[in-house]
Amino acid sequence: MPGFFMSFIATPQSMRFEEVLPLQSGASIRDYVLAYETYGTLNAERSNAVLVCHALNASHHVAGVYEGQPRSEGWWDNMIGPGKPVDTNRFFVIGVNNLGSCFGSTGPMHTHPDTGEVYGADFPVVTVEDWVNAQARLLDRLGITQLAAVLGGSLGGMQALGWTLQYPERMRHAVVVASAPNLTAENIAFNEVARRAIVTDPDFHGGHFYRHGVIPQRGLRIARMIGHITYLSDDVMNEKFGRQLREGLTPKYSTQDIEFQIESYLRYQGDKFSEYFDANTYLLITRALDYFDPALQYGGSLTQALARATAKFLLISFTTDWRFSPQRSREIVKALLDNRRRVSYAEIDAPHGHDAFLLDDPRYMDTMRSYFDAIAKEHHA
Amino acid sequence: MPGFFMSFIATPQSMRFEEVLPLQSGASIRDYVLAYETYGTLNAERSNAVLVCHALNASHHVAGVYEGQPRSEGWWDNMIGPGKPVDTNRFFVIGVNNLGSCFGSTGPMHTHPDTGEVYGADFPVVTVEDWVNAQARLLDRLGITQLAAVLGGSLGGMQALGWTLQYPERMRHAVVVASAPNLTAENIAFNEVARRAIVTDPDFHGGHFYRHGVIPQRGLRIARMIGHITYLSDDVMNEKFGRQLREGLTPKYSTQDIEFQIESYLRYQGDKFSEYFDANTYLLITRALDYFDPALQYGGSLTQALARATAKFLLISFTTDWRFSPQRSREIVKALLDNRRRVSYAEIDAPHGHDAFLLDDPRYMDTMRSYFDAIAKEHHA
Repeated sequence: MPGFFMSFIATPQSMRFEEVLPLQSGASIRDYVLAYETYGTLNAERSNAVLVCHALNASHHVAGVYEGQPRSEGWWDNMIGPGKPVDTNRFFVIGVNNLGSCFGSTGPMHTHPDTGEVYGADFPVVTVEDWVNAQARLLDRLGITQLAAVLGGSLGGMQALGWTLQYPERMRHAVVVASAPNLTAENIAFNEVARRAIVTDPDFHGGHFYRHGVIPQRGLRIARMIGHITYLSDDVMNEKFGRQLREGLTPKYSTQDIEFQIESYLRYQGDKFSEYFDANTYLLITRALDYFDPALQYGGSLTQALARATAKFLLISFTTDWRFSPQRSREIVKALLDNRRRVSYAEIDAPHGHDAFLLDDPRYMDTMRSYFDAIAKEHHA
Repeated sequence: MPGFFMSFIATPQSMRFEEVLPLQSGASIRDYVLAYETYGTLNAERSNAVLVCHALNASHHVAGVYEGQPRSEGWWDNMIGPGKPVDTNRFFVIGVNNLGSCFGSTGPMHTHPDTGEVYGADFPVVTVEDWVNAQARLLDRLGITQLAAVLGGSLGGMQALGWTLQYPERMRHAVVVASAPNLTAENIAFNEVARRAIVTDPDFHGGHFYRHGVIPQRGLRIARMIGHITYLSDDVMNEKFGRQLREGLTPKYSTQDIEFQIESYLRYQGDKFSEYFDANTYLLITRALDYFDPALQYGGSLTQALARATAKFLLISFTTDWRFSPQRSREIVKALLDNRRRVSYAEIDAPHGHDAFLLDDPRYMDTMRSYFDAIAKEHHA
């Protein structure tokens, strides 16, 4: 029996959808699969379901470990599980891998049903709105009409926000962590440099590299290194690596060899990532980030955009997050308050930058625990 | 006759040095050329010389225009010239292109005198200290024993700081703009990603691409795009580009085409840069930035490191500069005050980020003008 601080066994599942899903771009996709996992038990009223949305480099494997793989914890295993802040003894938690990803759901490395060829660069552009629609169809199949909460960090928070606008009646709470109502020019700029590194890698072959038996690893490495810089705060980088040399006390004086620890760290992260992440997925997911902007069709008014939302909100930001700064969360809070929605907001003083949303911070964990305790009481009442 | 707000004609010169210059790495270089320019007239006492040190993408062409090329203003032409804050009617201003650069001084694309081959990746690693030593030899040849001031922004400011430690008796003032006493881990990280983009470009050929008749343009483009992001503030990017699409009001939904104005801007900057900047020079100059750390040999104490400096100082920083933030300038100010040195410090409230040091800001220009007016009075006294 799973208890506090023990891992439980997670079992990946998948659901096939033959029917056409219309996409925001005007294109559509059919005959696709969504990989997902569930933890805990759906109650008789079907009222305790929590959907967890993932960010760039994550998947449906949110919590628990896989049978026989003791070090395979889900990406939010510290937050979600039996006795954890999002307690799977009380909630039925669902993790879904998004369309276009490379961890099990249909993506660019799968076969296009119309052509019989691998999608590659022909995989349709998907948006946060499309992901939310696909997630809603999965919930239909699972027989869940209304979610207790949709929960996500970073790009996952954008999906939670999207849910409140696309399916306001199908959810009671939105928990939006370390997120933003849209990307700034600087955010888009970092995405664009990463994409250019991938697209201009000679091994990318216009996105059809699978046919050539190669992978644009150079580009993926650069993309990941750029990403990592933006996930960490300046302070935590200085504390972890500072100006420390990798070997000895004096530099080797080389332009190409590793001199500093930070270089070693970044190269390692880049190498590791380039071995498992799909290049077309990287393009698709960064584009979904770029495009997300619920205020766009309201002349830039986030207040007007969020008028449709009826959920209760918890927003959390981290002081040293310079990718999605607290100011961006406060914009969402303000727009919700303008609409007289019920909003809780916590700005956590954490040194870790954007990555803080995945780390253990007592105030952060306590905030989540209290909020989900309150949700649990509410739906059992 | 040159007057206010008029360009004057600048004439590039060069000086050959046959003798060996020992380098900080233990290597050395001989038979090299330094490209330089001078503006104004050296006075009879030889006391009005000002050395201007350049940053990554700049050269000895600091001010004025080249004969018959009306749009060829030097990179600090708004600051330096007749009647300008650094007034060439009073000062004899010297701009020098640093060793390893690609604008006229000996660099990686020149021929190694020992081998008769193009240096390429075999060009020795040069440091800020080496540049300062090379600049001092040029001044010897020009018959200048003591400078009125050494002036530089960003990496140029590091050279000005280096001068105060290596040749304290040869200068009276150091003007250090938008600079830092060393790079942070994050600064090094951005340099490293840029270098990896260049080095892993298949056209780099280990730095000997000249032999192959190719240029690692992909890598240079990525490097420049990353650089540009760090030169601008988040605010100015949002103001200039925001989330504006390049065409129309709705996206095209493409992962590879340009959608946003900021992407168009970055690609343009990357393309332009990759056509004229040398890849090996990029590696060398970013490494010189990484290595600069006068406090290193004093156990990290900047106060002890700056005890040698006898110059009077003006330091200037810009509030929105997140590459070399005001805090970094304040570290230098504090270390100088610990040593009871005379320091003026101005923190300019400017929206433009690191780039502000090259732009017209009335308070910035006034601060420079007042300081150089005072220097002029001093040495004529």
